[in-house]
Amino acid sequence: MQIRQTDEQGRLRHLITLEDLDREQLESILRHAERYLSQPGKPPPRDTILSGQTVANLFFEASTRTRASFELAAKRLSADVLNLDVNMSSRAKGESVMDTIFTLQAMHVDIFVVRDASTGVPAMIARQVAPHVCVLNAGESDVSHPTQGLLDVLTMQLHKGDTSALRIAIVGDIRHSRVANSAYHALSKLGVGELRLVGPPELMPESDEFVGAVRDTTLDSGIRDADVVMALRLQKERFAQLSDIPDSQEYHRRYGLTQARMAAAKPDAIVMHPGPMNRGVEIDSSVADGPQSVIREQVANGLAVRMAVLARVHEHVRSARGEA
Amino acid sequence: MQIRQTDEQGRLRHLITLEDLDREQLESILRHAERYLSQPGKPPPRDTILSGQTVANLFFEASTRTRASFELAAKRLSADVLNLDVNMSSRAKGESVMDTIFTLQAMHVDIFVVRDASTGVPAMIARQVAPHVCVLNAGESDVSHPTQGLLDVLTMQLHKGDTSALRIAIVGDIRHSRVANSAYHALSKLGVGELRLVGPPELMPESDEFVGAVRDTTLDSGIRDADVVMALRLQKERFAQLSDIPDSQEYHRRYGLTQARMAAAKPDAIVMHPGPMNRGVEIDSSVADGPQSVIREQVANGLAVRMAVLARVHEHVRSARGEA
Amino acid sequence: MQIRQTDEQGRLRHLITLEDLDREQLESILRHAERYLSQPGKPPPRDTILSGQTVANLFFEASTRTRASFELAAKRLSADVLNLDVNMSSRAKGESVMDTIFTLQAMHVDIFVVRDASTGVPAMIARQVAPHVCVLNAGESDVSHPTQGLLDVLTMQLHKGDTSALRIAIVGDIRHSRVANSAYHALSKLGVGELRLVGPPELMPESDEFVGAVRDTTLDSGIRDADVVMALRLQKERFAQLSDIPDSQEYHRRYGLTQARMAAAKPDAIVMHPGPMNRGVEIDSSVADGPQSVIREQVANGLAVRMAVLARVHEHVRSARGEA
Repeated sequence: MQIRQTDEQGRLRHLITLEDLDREQLESILRHAERYLSQPGKPPPRDTILSGQTVANLFFEASTRTRASFELAAKRLSADVLNLDVNMSSRAKGESVMDTIFTLQAMHVDIFVVRDASTGVPAMIARQVAPHVCVLNAGESDVSHPTQGLLDVLTMQLHKGDTSALRIAIVGDIRHSRVANSAYHALSKLGVGELRLVGPPELMPESDEFVGAVRDTTLDSGIRDADVVMALRLQKERFAQLSDIPDSQEYHRRYGLTQARMAAAKPDAIVMHPGPMNRGVEIDSSVADGPQSVIREQVANGLAVRMAVLARVHEHVRSARGEA
Repeated sequence: MQIRQTDEQGRLRHLITLEDLDREQLESILRHAERYLSQPGKPPPRDTILSGQTVANLFFEASTRTRASFELAAKRLSADVLNLDVNMSSRAKGESVMDTIFTLQAMHVDIFVVRDASTGVPAMIARQVAPHVCVLNAGESDVSHPTQGLLDVLTMQLHKGDTSALRIAIVGDIRHSRVANSAYHALSKLGVGELRLVGPPELMPESDEFVGAVRDTTLDSGIRDADVVMALRLQKERFAQLSDIPDSQEYHRRYGLTQARMAAAKPDAIVMHPGPMNRGVEIDSSVADGPQSVIREQVANGLAVRMAVLARVHEHVRSARGEA
Repeated sequence: MQIRQTDEQGRLRHLITLEDLDREQLESILRHAERYLSQPGKPPPRDTILSGQTVANLFFEASTRTRASFELAAKRLSADVLNLDVNMSSRAKGESVMDTIFTLQAMHVDIFVVRDASTGVPAMIARQVAPHVCVLNAGESDVSHPTQGLLDVLTMQLHKGDTSALRIAIVGDIRHSRVANSAYHALSKLGVGELRLVGPPELMPESDEFVGAVRDTTLDSGIRDADVVMALRLQKERFAQLSDIPDSQEYHRRYGLTQARMAAAKPDAIVMHPGPMNRGVEIDSSVADGPQSVIREQVANGLAVRMAVLARVHEHVRSARGEA
């Protein structure tokens, strides 16, 4: 199941999971992303380095924000962008995923951005594409969402500096969260003072996962003195699995981030959420839109991270094609 | 509910309704639009002024022609364009409209083009976006469709000159028509000789609306000696509300524009329709495709109007960002 | 029903069917397409000749690969591209096809790429558009798919040279195949050594169609000593019409291309398929992905053919507009 994510010169080629990247590779992408940040209200950075390259957004699972983020990242680097919602056409005809990929590769698509609800699809694609072609995971089942993990640690670093001294609490449905998974992988490499997982027992990960993290089923103690509180989106279909949480009101009472509950964290703690938010369930609007929230910065940082990742793998494409 | 549509320097920032613009502002946009007109069969005008800017077409209600018109207008001014059909993805996930907007704003979307079936959504967005960001209403419930109103008066002016001497008849479902509403607002500012509303009583607007207009429930007298006859699209679901019009055949007999009925209008009257047409219901093909029809010119003028509006609000974006 | 596909100067204007083009015209497009070929792993050719032109992909029938191919062909020639899935919006509103076309034409769309499930739609459009506007058929009912026919013969020529000496077997649902139809038209003009139609009797074309072709209901004899074996996609709904083939397993046993069956063809025969494939039905993966398969090359050649066709009709657009 392993997939080598770098080429023989050590350049990033695929981004399927953060688990197999080392600290230096992560830091290098993050520092690259900082070059693509801009102030709100200022024009975003643009570059022509992907001019003549073709990026296909292949979303087997619907998404507004992640697709828009990758689309704008590619366009601002001057790539040609092809958006394909494969539910609607050839998959309905029974064409296999790999036949779609090989078809697009034959049309000189260089970089595939793939989102899929099944585990293993991005890696399966990465193993089979031509040597110059790159695959970026834009969300894979419960398992991995590497650009989200990168934007999350970038956001922490920009506000709090080195993560290795931080107390970070992730609150909610950690068991089914590719966001939590990728954040954990990034923090494992970059270092973390203390990582706390907070949520009902049924939404905690298996005991052999998130090694080294502290688990807490109570919100107040779970976020006590935290520097970072990251709320996760709760899928409505989870309530059926929770023995003592019958509905969103009860979930909010027990695990919802409110201004009052946030008093347990450090006064300068930042609040994060990957979006889209269920306001009034896992987070109150007063917190989501309050002074501690960095939720909109996460979105801006996500675009910068995706530009950096595209720029990185583009170096592989050019080299493998024998250019420069 | 009011929203200021100009910035502090008096530049157009949002276009939510024509109601709050004055005559000079309307004329200024219309004269700007004329610069983007071109002959059929000649290449359309292009400009690079929106290069580096991002326009998001956010259509919460389906549309082919208006979306295509805004998309081409933005592309011909060299903007990056993001098309988002929000029914299909994040709205289904329960994300609120404003969270979608703030997410896209964090990705440096500068101009939002919004269509929504509910009243008040474009203004609600305009009130909350960042200072440099602009909102253009691309169709709002029954209430407002300002670029349609502008293209309608531009079409009248190009054929008939100053509208203040014209007898203009609007025929059909005026009560539920954002098209009629926006045309009325434009004509109120630019002047109109006589405005006639023609249709069955149940489709007439409330008595305190369309102040100054003459109402007529008979087609022949309603369009008598008119310079402009504008047919509106009739939604099939309206028949249930009409006590004495059971179906489209009866509607056509009473209010459908035919060559014979058009004889009541001035011989050089022009015929308009916002599209898409129900041929054989509110208008016959012999009229829609006949010598008096300016329906296709309306489409061409609409693209020019949208380019002009985008070019205008772009001046606000650049100024608010501290450029030039 | 005939439509003139060239303008008065003999330049290609529409591409609706290959039936009405002569050998010289076909060869000229094919040689033009060769200039747009590139090695896998090399950057695809690009050109700016369609800069300032607008191509609308108007797909009334879903498609991933053909739409992507036309979209990338147009973008790599620097055109503005408008993707319209008309099922979802204005057609649902009852707008007629021609009103959609005239609307887009008024927005200065120069080239329409049309796919439709009904016979005659592309020609109907071509007959009515403005003199400078071009229509390209991207798949029409069972009848015609001219760019597919061109890419198929280009693929044969690149591997086997002149088609007039080749023994070519088309296997499967020839009766309902626009792919087979267009290949037949191209081969009729360019010459073919022997054309064999292989499949169950119910899927054979009418007796007055495919004049000159040999029919065979047995796979082994049908592909014996063939230079080219082209498998067609089998629609699942066909089984109901086949008296002695109840399901895909039986179809595969009788007409599926396997490595063992392919031994009947020439050792250097090439295997083609228009995609998307039903692996395990009309073709085995060992054949589809084997050394004789040129299926991915067909895709690459298709992009080159579409670039060539766009470049050709662009000459008509420019001339009809009075440019150079």
